Amino acid sequence: MAIRRLHLLHRREERERTGLFLIEGVRFLLAADRHKVRCETLVVAPDLLHHRMARHAVLRWQNAGVPVLEVPPGVFHHLSGSDEPQGIAAVVPADWERLAEVSPHEGLCWIVLGSIQSPGNLGSILRTADAVGAAGIVFLDPDVDPYDPACVRASMGALFSLRLVRASPAELLSWKRRHGVFLVGTAPDAAADYQEIRYPAPTALWMGCERRGIPSEHRTFCDTLVRIPMRGDSDSLNVAVATGVALYEVLNQDRRRPG
Amino acid sequence: MAIRRLHLLHRREERERTGLFLIEGVRFLLAADRHKVRCETLVVAPDLLHHRMARHAVLRWQNAGVPVLEVPPGVFHHLSGSDEPQGIAAVVPADWERLAEVSPHEGLCWIVLGSIQSPGNLGSILRTADAVGAAGIVFLDPDVDPYDPACVRASMGALFSLRLVRASPAELLSWKRRHGVFLVGTAPDAAADYQEIRYPAPTALWMGCERRGIPSEHRTFCDTLVRIPMRGDSDSLNVAVATGVALYEVLNQDRRRPG
Repeated sequence: MAIRRLHLLHRREERERTGLFLIEGVRFLLAADRHKVRCETLVVAPDLLHHRMARHAVLRWQNAGVPVLEVPPGVFHHLSGSDEPQGIAAVVPADWERLAEVSPHEGLCWIVLGSIQSPGNLGSILRTADAVGAAGIVFLDPDVDPYDPACVRASMGALFSLRLVRASPAELLSWKRRHGVFLVGTAPDAAADYQEIRYPAPTALWMGCERRGIPSEHRTFCDTLVRIPMRGDSDSLNVAVATGVALYEVLNQDRRRPG
Repeated sequence: MAIRRLHLLHRREERERTGLFLIEGVRFLLAADRHKVRCETLVVAPDLLHHRMARHAVLRWQNAGVPVLEVPPGVFHHLSGSDEPQGIAAVVPADWERLAEVSPHEGLCWIVLGSIQSPGNLGSILRTADAVGAAGIVFLDPDVDPYDPACVRASMGALFSLRLVRASPAELLSWKRRHGVFLVGTAPDAAADYQEIRYPAPTALWMGCERRGIPSEHRTFCDTLVRIPMRGDSDSLNVAVATGVALYEVLNQDRRRPG
């Protein structure tokens, strides 16, 4: 794969067209390796790559037949999103699953997201989702791209631990019904406090995102709506923080559950 | 104040030198107004400013003697950090307080922060701090600047609700001792779970930030160290998410406290 094609993967359309995305840095490559993600191409700048485990991993992948593109430091710097690039990147396949083929009975819960502007916030959500042991994310807005380089970076590699699904609200509803998923929506004007209700397994947590929240026509899909209480002048939380607060309530209830 | 001087406020050194910073957008101006912050200069692009309440506020400030700099839309666009500027900005004074003059007996708790790289994360922390009714933030790292435009933006105006203090670790320790503040530090390797301990009033929550965490020589300042449990592959949370999770535990305990 030519270096020019790698640069194109910084663009959304090229990622969608090819089903490929870029990861960069030792932490991410090792996370991919742990999760047995198949690299399409490795990009290595030997002069920049000093991490011993990563150098070993490169040899291992090379022996397993993964094409390795060696580039000089200047070329790597140009490709990199980092100020201090570690000299290793890879092209890996996006791993979308179909909701109809997903069982909700694994992991702590699922997360449902509408539109999110900031890839950094999205990456933080993935990182928290992984930290609590959530199973995966359902993306209702096809414009939200977890494979955006800024999201991948903010996820700290959590991308590989989670199942990622794109679905329509109608597909979400039929999945919820088929599997008896308890669907909890968050909304600032909800009657119930988020600590007041019990989150059974399987639960899916639909985060009302940023300006719009959960569209009114979809609120009836939810078994219950909850609000996160606030005291100050603020009328809302950052969406990644709100998701963290809600997910930790689900985790904490699960930790208190016998057995 | 000349428009050239306003541009300079995008730079850290100029903010420190003048004790002034920029806010921009209707939400921020109205937040400043609610908190009776004295504007040094208003910057208005009348052709961009369509918000009725904000137009009224401009008249009110003008009548109160605040200098108003009217600029054409192009000039405002150039000054603005926003893609869709609302035609209103202001120069306002930074409001640092001295820790020795601060009583910890108001608000839910205090937050203590070390170094934080991302102004967006810092802004999210301020926004959450305001949402739970925290009193203020103690910044131990003089390089962290809550008046950075990206932080101000992410704070959504919460900046004006919080007391902001810069202090050394030694000053923090003497403040803690003088007022009997219960100082809780967060650390991934702490023995206690963050839900295991009680957070009395006054509590200060020292967030171990990003790579370094709470420096080992300062850990003894804390009455206790707590960890936020994790299940997945991730070994850490985003600092704004971790702060949110911890602050909501303090808030939730306070909500359960009788009367």
